[in-house]
Amino acid sequence: MSELTEQESYRTEISKLGEFGLIDHLTKNIELQNSSSRTGVGDDAAVIDHEGYQTLVSVDLMVEGVHFDLTYTPLKHLGYKAIAVNLSDIAAMNGEPQQVVVGIALSSRFPVEAIEEIYEGMLMACKRYKIDLVGGDTTSSTSGLFISVTVIGRAKAEDICYRKGSAAGDLLCVSGDLGAAYMGLLLLEREKAAFKANPNVQPDLEGFDYVLERQLKPEPRTDIVVLLKEAGVKPTSMIDISDGLASEIMHLCKASGVGCRIYEDKIPFDPVTLNTADSFRMVPAVVALNGGEDYELLFTVKQSDFEKVRQIKGISIIGHMTENKGHADMVTSDSQVIGLTAQGWDALKNKADY
Amino acid sequence: MSELTEQESYRTEISKLGEFGLIDHLTKNIELQNSSSRTGVGDDAAVIDHEGYQTLVSVDLMVEGVHFDLTYTPLKHLGYKAIAVNLSDIAAMNGEPQQVVVGIALSSRFPVEAIEEIYEGMLMACKRYKIDLVGGDTTSSTSGLFISVTVIGRAKAEDICYRKGSAAGDLLCVSGDLGAAYMGLLLLEREKAAFKANPNVQPDLEGFDYVLERQLKPEPRTDIVVLLKEAGVKPTSMIDISDGLASEIMHLCKASGVGCRIYEDKIPFDPVTLNTADSFRMVPAVVALNGGEDYELLFTVKQSDFEKVRQIKGISIIGHMTENKGHADMVTSDSQVIGLTAQGWDALKNKADY
Repeated sequence: MSELTEQESYRTEISKLGEFGLIDHLTKNIELQNSSSRTGVGDDAAVIDHEGYQTLVSVDLMVEGVHFDLTYTPLKHLGYKAIAVNLSDIAAMNGEPQQVVVGIALSSRFPVEAIEEIYEGMLMACKRYKIDLVGGDTTSSTSGLFISVTVIGRAKAEDICYRKGSAAGDLLCVSGDLGAAYMGLLLLEREKAAFKANPNVQPDLEGFDYVLERQLKPEPRTDIVVLLKEAGVKPTSMIDISDGLASEIMHLCKASGVGCRIYEDKIPFDPVTLNTADSFRMVPAVVALNGGEDYELLFTVKQSDFEKVRQIKGISIIGHMTENKGHADMVTSDSQVIGLTAQGWDALKNKADY
Repeated sequence: MSELTEQESYRTEISKLGEFGLIDHLTKNIELQNSSSRTGVGDDAAVIDHEGYQTLVSVDLMVEGVHFDLTYTPLKHLGYKAIAVNLSDIAAMNGEPQQVVVGIALSSRFPVEAIEEIYEGMLMACKRYKIDLVGGDTTSSTSGLFISVTVIGRAKAEDICYRKGSAAGDLLCVSGDLGAAYMGLLLLEREKAAFKANPNVQPDLEGFDYVLERQLKPEPRTDIVVLLKEAGVKPTSMIDISDGLASEIMHLCKASGVGCRIYEDKIPFDPVTLNTADSFRMVPAVVALNGGEDYELLFTVKQSDFEKVRQIKGISIIGHMTENKGHADMVTSDSQVIGLTAQGWDALKNKADY
């Protein structure tokens, strides 16, 4: 038996199972975890009961060659990330994600084992965040891998936080630390380029676990939603950081009709992010402002909530909203004031990146 | 000015607008029509209130080269169809579709005008069926066009019809007529092949409007849901016909744990479908059983509802459920009994079709 044939014996062609066979195969072990999920996979539509709550819905696409590069993205991580980034959208509304429906289109270069890995990652994220996968569509593509995730969440009407709602004087807060995911991406791209130039080179990624994990396996901050509720704080506006801090700040300013001033030395960084930025000769604040994919929450609170917010671990106050409508600036570490422009990652403008 | 430059002056590169610009541009005229749509496009998630109702969710992908061929599919029709086929899934649960969220990934070969046309078709379907487009994601792809539509609907818990629920003796009913969409597809493929062989040949599609429209611009049968309700009939099981009558009958049998017998001469056809089938030397029943994309509703009712159902225009009773679990057969026009097998269109198995 030739090596090729041996390899192929581990490969199950998707066409062997067909659409219904594949769906049955992938979803047979799903057990619904939320009482709001009345019916999951297997009918024309899922049935959900958010009695007494409002329903939140958001969709995100992930496209091979645009949002991910399979050279260095394990499929399991990809599945995990596809779910995680969607949950983040519900957290950004101050809601609880509850269900997902998933669409996957992939070319015949992928065997069943590949889609199993994607699903495994998806279900891992679902398990961790107590989400029910209640529906999906799986189909072929002529080339490439496309993932569409729609997340459904719930919130009491009075708890929902929009992008609009902040007022001059409100404090601008961010969860966790910023810039790590972008540093992880640059590292992976650097190693890919090095490998292309010389396939015998071993990847040099030791000590960078934190930024790599932030890029490959981001976590939605549903925990912050819970902590804020426990502290009795309702943000006046909120958004998640997917496209870079500057871009998200501009969204809040635009929606709320206010301005914003942030302070460079208040932006939270992990030491590994600082080291990595240093090795790339980049200014950490620029990485945070323009990098993206942090999936941290950016939100504003009333000044009267200052003490409550200060006591929540993992939240940094990085500035405040101003009356200077639509204008955001940053006070740098050496006390200069510079205007912010939204230069965040934009899948339509930057698609030539990969 | 050269001809090329002149042409290009009508082409707006998507990268010029960027993701946010494009979304603003496409969604600026959307007015929410349903009181259940509390917040639409423009935040991290849409907000929906289905107070007193259960929420139905379904997703469908449409992939260029697999589900559609842009050689003969106008983009506006494509947008319309993408919405229509999703609404059909909610109708199949005996629910009312209310909202959609839309994901579009497209390569740079498409200008802004192309995505505008897709959106125009989508919004046309939304207007016709009183649906709110409440969210979306638009991104680039390295090649091809991908559309993901998630539809959200509602129904009173007691009104929802599942695939399971039919019992032996129940009558099997179908709305409208079958096989037309598949005949339309075969015609379009035939003309495409003729054009390839000789680009001077004019397409010969006169008199075939009905089957072409059924293929290019299907309509979901939300009206049947209303008519059944008005007649006081709740189907015992229901599904929409996307993959061919045989495949859908098998789904109902499997989910309900029953068998089925249908009668060839009860299957409803439009005269144009019969003519087209004749010109392709195909048996109409085979077209209905295996063709797909009819988006009619297939459902079972109790025998006691026979009189009520008979009085609803546009519903045909084509057979009945039996105790012969998992086994479906058809009595042909010449009184033979043949077993049905689900050979419907399967995007994973038949992707080489195009």
